[in-house]
Amino acid sequence: MSDLRDHVVLLVGGVGGAKLALGLAEVLPTGSLTIIVNTADDFEHLGLHVSPDLDTVMYTLAGLANPLTGWGVEGDTFRAIEMVGRYGGPTWFRLGDSDLGTNLLRTVMLREGHTLTEITRQLCGALGIQHPILPMTDHTVQTWLDTDQGPLAFQEYFVRERWQPVVHRIRFVGAEEARPSEAVHEALEAASLIVFGPSNPFLSIDPILALPGVREQIAASDAPCVALSPIIGGEAVKGPAAKLMAELGVDVSPVGIVTHYRDLLDGIILDRVDSELRQPIEALNVRAMAEQTLMETREDKIRLAEKILNWAEENFE
Amino acid sequence: MSDLRDHVVLLVGGVGGAKLALGLAEVLPTGSLTIIVNTADDFEHLGLHVSPDLDTVMYTLAGLANPLTGWGVEGDTFRAIEMVGRYGGPTWFRLGDSDLGTNLLRTVMLREGHTLTEITRQLCGALGIQHPILPMTDHTVQTWLDTDQGPLAFQEYFVRERWQPVVHRIRFVGAEEARPSEAVHEALEAASLIVFGPSNPFLSIDPILALPGVREQIAASDAPCVALSPIIGGEAVKGPAAKLMAELGVDVSPVGIVTHYRDLLDGIILDRVDSELRQPIEALNVRAMAEQTLMETREDKIRLAEKILNWAEENFE
Repeated sequence: MSDLRDHVVLLVGGVGGAKLALGLAEVLPTGSLTIIVNTADDFEHLGLHVSPDLDTVMYTLAGLANPLTGWGVEGDTFRAIEMVGRYGGPTWFRLGDSDLGTNLLRTVMLREGHTLTEITRQLCGALGIQHPILPMTDHTVQTWLDTDQGPLAFQEYFVRERWQPVVHRIRFVGAEEARPSEAVHEALEAASLIVFGPSNPFLSIDPILALPGVREQIAASDAPCVALSPIIGGEAVKGPAAKLMAELGVDVSPVGIVTHYRDLLDGIILDRVDSELRQPIEALNVRAMAEQTLMETREDKIRLAEKILNWAEENFE
Repeated sequence: MSDLRDHVVLLVGGVGGAKLALGLAEVLPTGSLTIIVNTADDFEHLGLHVSPDLDTVMYTLAGLANPLTGWGVEGDTFRAIEMVGRYGGPTWFRLGDSDLGTNLLRTVMLREGHTLTEITRQLCGALGIQHPILPMTDHTVQTWLDTDQGPLAFQEYFVRERWQPVVHRIRFVGAEEARPSEAVHEALEAASLIVFGPSNPFLSIDPILALPGVREQIAASDAPCVALSPIIGGEAVKGPAAKLMAELGVDVSPVGIVTHYRDLLDGIILDRVDSELRQPIEALNVRAMAEQTLMETREDKIRLAEKILNWAEENFE
């Protein structure tokens, strides 16, 4: 019988997901963890192909991430973007100077014909990252939000408008014509445990699930699928998840998360403050564990990753 | 009769020429100076359109230039290029972080279809520069050097190989099909005085003269044409001019400069250490003035610019 820790596949977006990625990366040996990252937030800015979620996960695993913001490079400066501003150019997306180095090189390599998967592999290798970080696809998928201010591209909504517009609908433009990369398909095929990170279900996990075949592959997999709730006590740890769920008429709680993922989930880890929700969730045939889920320190991340793996082994093997 | 100071047109490359450009910019009122800049050193690097000479002149006139190197932005950092290096990418061309801001915006604007002339006008305007800085052309011209190490593109020769290869021949690829911009043509048409800056005649001024019609326009102009010698006491103030002249079999002296520019020059300003060369130069029907030509301080630049204008007025009006 295969060990549940043999091949853990984690699906994530940016900052929150990266924290669990770091915890699992510390706990699992090389070869036992693959991280699939949302790329529907990717966009072209100042002529560069920017991949915010990929870089957040990469910097986090490389120990380079800014601990205050969760994204960008620790101690980074903003001289380039300030110079752009001096000329009257756009400054609403604050790319740091070190971060620009990443984006410059990625953009050049994409133009040379390398895939985002191959480029990410090379960049991560240079930073000494042991576990594969996979963009969900090598095709272009772009999140658009229909809001009370009209349709907005993801970064316009998220960064420029600070997620204040009211969202009616979310669209993943290009998803139907896109394909998950071969590496993503193989990772899911080999999965012994699938984990949805504490990322925004609507903006970070859904784009991955929207790729043709991915939802079906997860549903058909023998591997149990568990999620770490991004909602704690009715609020998102970070970002627009709670606000968005309310706007879309979804229960802003781990129950809403379980309902949203529908038939995919076998289990959910929710925070202790929500422990009274274990019962209604288990009534939906989804196992639930209440834990201290806020990950502030490195130790928090490792401890939570270990707990999730132990709990999954106890419940699903 | 038109005043010789009415419309001075300065032809330059990078660092040396920028010094005289600053001097003239301080002495002449707005509307009386146009600076035409070599763009045959421009190249694509890390996906960016880099215009080293344009930026050197722009930063110098904006008071932003690094006083130690003459190029780049004072106090600039190199985080982006260091990050590129961390991934194993190319670091031989050291673009500073602020400088990257300029290059990012220029590249985006070029892709949007703006001309280099229009972009340079906008960037210079944002930096408060009063005098027009004109790229010599909106077309692509690229300096190539045939050397003992084979053919090298300009920046490979100049930066990567630190101008150590021996040069047999210099080619301005694309010059024959290029055209000077309309603004350059009009400036030369309106010129009351044409000045060749103390730039490398072979690498900085010749590309401008190689554009169809420019040499003819200068030769036919009523405006006197004077050069400031980049060679002092048999040596170049900076860069490969002296080494290159020797390799090409040209006399490494102001006499060699005069001979090189042939029929174009009416006068030359040479350094006091070369004052014994005034006579042989005047025998070639070119007026010569010996002056203290090293420009270290801001005051040096202003003083020399004033002297050149006064001398030209005395001799050519």
